[in-house]
Amino acid sequence: MSLSHALITDLYEFSMANGYFETLPRDTEAVFDVFYRTVPDNGSFVVSAGLEQVVEQLRGFHYTKEDIDYLKSLKLFSAEFISYLETMTFDCVVYAIPEGTPVFPRVPILTVKGPLIQCQLLETFVLNLINHQSLIATKSRRINLAAAGRPVMEFGARRAQGPDASVLGARAAVIGGCGSTSNVLSAAKYNIPVAGTMAHSWVQSYPTELEAFEKWAEVYPDNALLLVDTYDVLTSGVPNAIKVFEELRTKGHKKFGIRIDSGDIAKLSRKARKMMDDAGFPEATITASNALNENVIHSLLQEGAPLDSFGVGEQLITSSSSPVLSGVFKLAALKIGDGEWQPKIKLSNSKEKVTLPGEKKAYRLYHKGTKNAFADVIALADESLPEEFVGINMDPMMTETEANLKDFDAVLLTQVVVGSKAKSIETDTFKIQKHMYEKLAELPEETQRLLNPDRYPVYLTPALADLQAKMIKDHKL
Amino acid sequence: MSLSHALITDLYEFSMANGYFETLPRDTEAVFDVFYRTVPDNGSFVVSAGLEQVVEQLRGFHYTKEDIDYLKSLKLFSAEFISYLETMTFDCVVYAIPEGTPVFPRVPILTVKGPLIQCQLLETFVLNLINHQSLIATKSRRINLAAAGRPVMEFGARRAQGPDASVLGARAAVIGGCGSTSNVLSAAKYNIPVAGTMAHSWVQSYPTELEAFEKWAEVYPDNALLLVDTYDVLTSGVPNAIKVFEELRTKGHKKFGIRIDSGDIAKLSRKARKMMDDAGFPEATITASNALNENVIHSLLQEGAPLDSFGVGEQLITSSSSPVLSGVFKLAALKIGDGEWQPKIKLSNSKEKVTLPGEKKAYRLYHKGTKNAFADVIALADESLPEEFVGINMDPMMTETEANLKDFDAVLLTQVVVGSKAKSIETDTFKIQKHMYEKLAELPEETQRLLNPDRYPVYLTPALADLQAKMIKDHKL
Repeated sequence: MSLSHALITDLYEFSMANGYFETLPRDTEAVFDVFYRTVPDNGSFVVSAGLEQVVEQLRGFHYTKEDIDYLKSLKLFSAEFISYLETMTFDCVVYAIPEGTPVFPRVPILTVKGPLIQCQLLETFVLNLINHQSLIATKSRRINLAAAGRPVMEFGARRAQGPDASVLGARAAVIGGCGSTSNVLSAAKYNIPVAGTMAHSWVQSYPTELEAFEKWAEVYPDNALLLVDTYDVLTSGVPNAIKVFEELRTKGHKKFGIRIDSGDIAKLSRKARKMMDDAGFPEATITASNALNENVIHSLLQEGAPLDSFGVGEQLITSSSSPVLSGVFKLAALKIGDGEWQPKIKLSNSKEKVTLPGEKKAYRLYHKGTKNAFADVIALADESLPEEFVGINMDPMMTETEANLKDFDAVLLTQVVVGSKAKSIETDTFKIQKHMYEKLAELPEETQRLLNPDRYPVYLTPALADLQAKMIKDHKL
Repeated sequence: MSLSHALITDLYEFSMANGYFETLPRDTEAVFDVFYRTVPDNGSFVVSAGLEQVVEQLRGFHYTKEDIDYLKSLKLFSAEFISYLETMTFDCVVYAIPEGTPVFPRVPILTVKGPLIQCQLLETFVLNLINHQSLIATKSRRINLAAAGRPVMEFGARRAQGPDASVLGARAAVIGGCGSTSNVLSAAKYNIPVAGTMAHSWVQSYPTELEAFEKWAEVYPDNALLLVDTYDVLTSGVPNAIKVFEELRTKGHKKFGIRIDSGDIAKLSRKARKMMDDAGFPEATITASNALNENVIHSLLQEGAPLDSFGVGEQLITSSSSPVLSGVFKLAALKIGDGEWQPKIKLSNSKEKVTLPGEKKAYRLYHKGTKNAFADVIALADESLPEEFVGINMDPMMTETEANLKDFDAVLLTQVVVGSKAKSIETDTFKIQKHMYEKLAELPEETQRLLNPDRYPVYLTPALADLQAKMIKDHKL
C-alpha cells in the first residue's frame, strides 16, 4: 500500500467535497459534463481517447491508507468526511462516447452522474486522462492523414512529458492511426507492434560505417533498415547500405531499406532512391524521420519525395504545435435530497463559455438510410428526438443559427459505463483505430482537411435552447 | 510482479544492445553525454531537473519476469542476451549536474559511463525524465520571474500530458520557483504545500452566489478565497464577497480574498481592489488565474493590476509555448575490450549538430574571488584546467570565437552518482529551488531576461577543440 493515483486531483476537489458534506444533504446528486470548446491545430474535431484509463481508475476506486493519512495530516477536513472517504463505495454512473470517435465542440464526450461529492472528486483525473489522450489521438489522425496511407511509427518516448505520456501517448497515437511504436512498454501493455532498428551510436561504435552496417546485417538479416546519415548520406551512407543489400540479397533476404534522419529529406531521398534503383534495389525502402509533423510530411509528399514510411517523434507525442486540449468538467444539474433535478448553468461574458444546462444526450444525424452524417444534436436527456425540428446552432462563429432538421436517422453517441462495475468497453487498440476510420468515413470530407476544415454543425433541440435562454435571462434579472 | 518502467525504452536500444552483445567483446565500455542545443522559449539556459527520478530508476535497475517474457516473445533477441538481461547487475557510473542548476547549451548535463550495452538501455528513459522535468522547471522559472516575487501556485493537473506529467511536472514547477501546487499526490510525494479553494461548481451548487460564499466561510473561515466570476465579477461576485468578509472579520478572521478566473483581469482587478478598499478590506487579496503565462503576468503587472498571487495551469504544466526540450544522448567515447578509450563523434552538415568527442568535464568560471560567473568551459576529463588559456566558443551564432581566459575560479558543475548504489543527491524540492536561486544570482543578469536574453559563453579548452577539429578532418578525408 502506498499513495495512489486517486490522489491525482486538485486540493479544491477535496475542499469542495468536504464542504458539500458539511452543508448539503448527504444524498445530493449531480450531473457533470466533459466537453471542449477549442480543437487543437484549428481542426474541426477531436478524436476521443483515454476512456479505458478512466474506467480502469474508476473500477475499484478507493483511497489507500496512506492517502487517508496524508489527507488527515492536512488538518483541513472533518473527521466524519475523512471516514466517508475511507469507506466510500463508488456509485457514479459514467456515460461516454466510445474511444476513437470524432467529437465536435460542445458535445458532451463524457457525463458523470451520481453523488455530488463523488463526482467532484473525479474531475481532475478524468480531465487529465481524456484531455491528454484525445490530444495525441487527434494529432496522430492529422499526421496519418498527411502520410496518405504510408505507415507512421510513433517514436517520441524520449521527448514525451514524462513516463506515462510516453506509454499512454503511444496508445493514443495508434488510436489516431499509427501502426506501430518504438516504446516497448506501451507495445507490451497495449499489444501494439514494436518497431525500430539502430541509432547513430550503433554506427559510431564500429571502426567504419560499412562494418557497422555489415555487423547489423549479420545479426538482423531480415530487419536491415540502415541509418545512413551518421557521416554523409550520399557519399557514405547510401553506398555502404547498397553494399550490404547486395550481400543480403545473395543470402536470400529481401527486406531492407534506409532511414534518413537529417538534412534536406526531399532532396536526399530522391537521390538515394535513384542510387538504390540504379544499383538494382527498387524494393529497398526509405524511411524519413527528424522533427516530422503533418505539415512537413504533406510538403515532402507534395514535392514527390519517394518516402515509404515515417518515424514521428516529439511533434506527435507532445502535439507540439498545439499541446493542450482544454476539456472542461462542468456542473449541468443538481438534485438536493429528495428534491427535483435542477438544471445548472455557468455564465460568462463570452457566448462560447456559457454552459449547457441540464442532463443531456448527444446524437449524430445521418441522411436517412445512409451512412452520411451531417450534424450532431444535443438534447435534454428526457426528451425524445422529434422527427422534425428546428435545430439551434450555438457555435458563436456561425451566422446560420437555425436549421430545419428532418429525414434523418439519429444515432446516440454514447455507450454506458456503470459505476465501478464498468460495462466492458472496447480495449483492443487497433479495433478502436478501426472504429475511428469507420466514423471518419461517415463525416463530410470538408471537415477532415488539415487546413481550414469546414465547421460541422452541432445543434441544440428547441427545448434545450429554450432552457439555456431562460436561465441566462433569470440570472441577468 | 508485472511489466516495469524499465521497458520504457525504444525497441532499438534492445536491438542495438543485442547486436553489441553478438558482435563486440562483452566488456566493451562507453561514455554517453546528455545535453541540449536549443533552449525553450528562446531563453539562454535550462533549469536542470529530473535527476531524482533517474537515480530512483537506476537504483535497483532490473527487468521483471514479465518484462523478460515479453522480450522473449518478440523473437528478436538471442537466448544468451535475454539471459544477460535477466541477471544483469547495473554498473554504470552516472555524473550529473545537480537539479536546479541553470545549464547552458552543449554542456553535458549528465554523463553515463559503463558497459556499452547497459548505457544504451538507459538512453530513452533518462532522456524522458530529464527532458520533461527540465522543460517544466525552465518554464516555471520564467513565470516566477514575471511574477516578481508574488506567489505562483501550479495548478495544471487537468491539462497535463497524463498522470505522471501532472505529478512530476508539479515537482519541476516548484524547482523552478512555484511555492505550492494544487496536485494532492505531488504535494504528498514531494512535501510541497498544497493549495486551492473552490471551483465554479461550488457556487453553482447553492441557490445564490451569496449563500455559496457564506457556506464556504462557515466551513473554511480561515481559507476564504472566493471565486467571484461565476455570474458577474463586479455586480455580483465582489459585492457578495465583501458581505462575507464583513461576517468573517466580525468573527475575528483575517485571511480572505477573491480569485478572478475570466474576463479582463487588469480592469476587473483594479475595480475589485477599489471596491474592497472602499469597503474597508485593503488586506483582502486578489488572485488571478485563467490561461496565464509569463507574458500575460508581465503585462498585467506592467499595467499596474493589483494582483497578489497567481494560479498557473496549462501553460506551465505543458510549457505550451515551447513544449519540447530536445535533449540528446550521444556517444562520446568507446573502449573495446582491453583497448584504449577512443573518442567518438557524430558529424552533420549543421555545425551546431556536430558532437563533442571524448569523456569530458564541465566547469563554471567565476571572476576570481567572487560569486560572479562569466563563462562555462568544457574540457577533456583527463586534462586539468590551465590557469590561463584560449577558450574556443563553439556556439555557431557567436562571432567572437575565442577568448583569453584567466583570473578565474573554476567550479566543477557535476556531482557524482555511482551506479545502482547512488550517492545521495539533494531530494528536498525546496532546497533544490533554493539552489536554483543561488545559482541564478551568480549569472549575469542579461542572461536571465524573458525576452532576448544575452548568450552566455560556453568555451572548449584547446585540447578538446583540437580533438574535435581533427576528428572532423579525419572523417572528411
